[in-house]
Amino acid sequence: MPKEFVDFSGAPGGHDLLNDVEPASARRLAHAALDSFSSVGYGGTTTRLISERAGLSSGALYSSFKSKEEILFLCTRLSHESALSVLRAAAQEPGSAMNRLRRMMYDFTLWHARNHAIARVSQYEFSGLTPEHHEVIAELRREIESVMRTEIQRGVELGEFDIEDQAGLTLAALSLAIDVCRWYNDGGRLAAERLADSYAGLVTRMLSSAPGQASPHAASPEFEPATSGSSQVLR
Amino acid sequence: MPKEFVDFSGAPGGHDLLNDVEPASARRLAHAALDSFSSVGYGGTTTRLISERAGLSSGALYSSFKSKEEILFLCTRLSHESALSVLRAAAQEPGSAMNRLRRMMYDFTLWHARNHAIARVSQYEFSGLTPEHHEVIAELRREIESVMRTEIQRGVELGEFDIEDQAGLTLAALSLAIDVCRWYNDGGRLAAERLADSYAGLVTRMLSSAPGQASPHAASPEFEPATSGSSQVLR
Repeated sequence: MPKEFVDFSGAPGGHDLLNDVEPASARRLAHAALDSFSSVGYGGTTTRLISERAGLSSGALYSSFKSKEEILFLCTRLSHESALSVLRAAAQEPGSAMNRLRRMMYDFTLWHARNHAIARVSQYEFSGLTPEHHEVIAELRREIESVMRTEIQRGVELGEFDIEDQAGLTLAALSLAIDVCRWYNDGGRLAAERLADSYAGLVTRMLSSAPGQASPHAASPEFEPATSGSSQVLR
Repeated sequence: MPKEFVDFSGAPGGHDLLNDVEPASARRLAHAALDSFSSVGYGGTTTRLISERAGLSSGALYSSFKSKEEILFLCTRLSHESALSVLRAAAQEPGSAMNRLRRMMYDFTLWHARNHAIARVSQYEFSGLTPEHHEVIAELRREIESVMRTEIQRGVELGEFDIEDQAGLTLAALSLAIDVCRWYNDGGRLAAERLADSYAGLVTRMLSSAPGQASPHAASPEFEPATSGSSQVLR
């Protein structure tokens, strides 16, 4: 492989999730594709642009991937698998349900800050996938949602959380963490750990009942109660 | 104007924010551009694609706009001005600070659900703007953040809100509402009004102190206190 071309493997924002792609030429192409998707969008990326960025021929690209969509799918799958695995591990946190939710929110937020580039592509270019690939990712997204919803429900059943709008909270917790990838950048003035801590604290507050406060809907009768719709955020 | 081409003016997701663009040919081009940005991304859109979708010639496009970037700027500016105006109006809500924040969160969330298409383009293609146009939008974003931050701060000063992490809360409230444009679609099973109500309720909870709960950081000493960084979400 020519040494004069840029090495993306140490690039920030989650490029390292691609470091295990084999063979090396496919890995190099995946890094170059992610870089291009991030800068000019999936729609603005051509297979030629990818192979040029990787310093490889078009032939090399087509021997590893059928299309740019296959590389998008690879990035999106690895990204979702990694996020799910982090959330699952956090759900094993010992102690109270509140402690578990705090850890889940902290880790899931931190993951989206640290992996903002690959997460952003995965979230925003989702619609570019073929129906078959879309379904693989949709299943991973349903799993992510299920882990969050299950732990919130468990806390309610244990009597630790006082919240009626579990669907809304599941949606909000996931959405808050995911949106980090839209605006977060490594050069920003907010450290990923502090952001994760802030969000973990806010979710803790959402899970606790407030003194002198009735149902969140009580103060404004014109608001109807929220209903289930949480999985929409990950569809 | 040829009648056989699609009329976008009634399209959902915020196309109606473009209905006052003059002359009619520029309006038609703006609608077609928004439609194309939404479906294939800014990077995947060419001026030729825009004029074809609008049923107009390339000449017609260049007589109204210098480039596709100018149309992106128009969409992004109208979108941000509309969102800011809705948030400002909500901040005039009479009654308690809590009532005001509830209304702001409700209306800002509802705006992002109803205008999801133009909002999505405005949020995700922001980086495609020229430095001059970027600065115009950045100023609108700072205004949006300022309105939210000011009202939260006012509620704290009035003793109505019990929260130390005002920067984190400003960030979270804006981010929650904005992220709606990523996943919301008109055909989804969650009505925009119910979503807005759910989020207004959750922000109410974040603003209230919880019983038997010390500082959100107290339970996990390894978390450092969050610091100011709220304006990053809108940069």
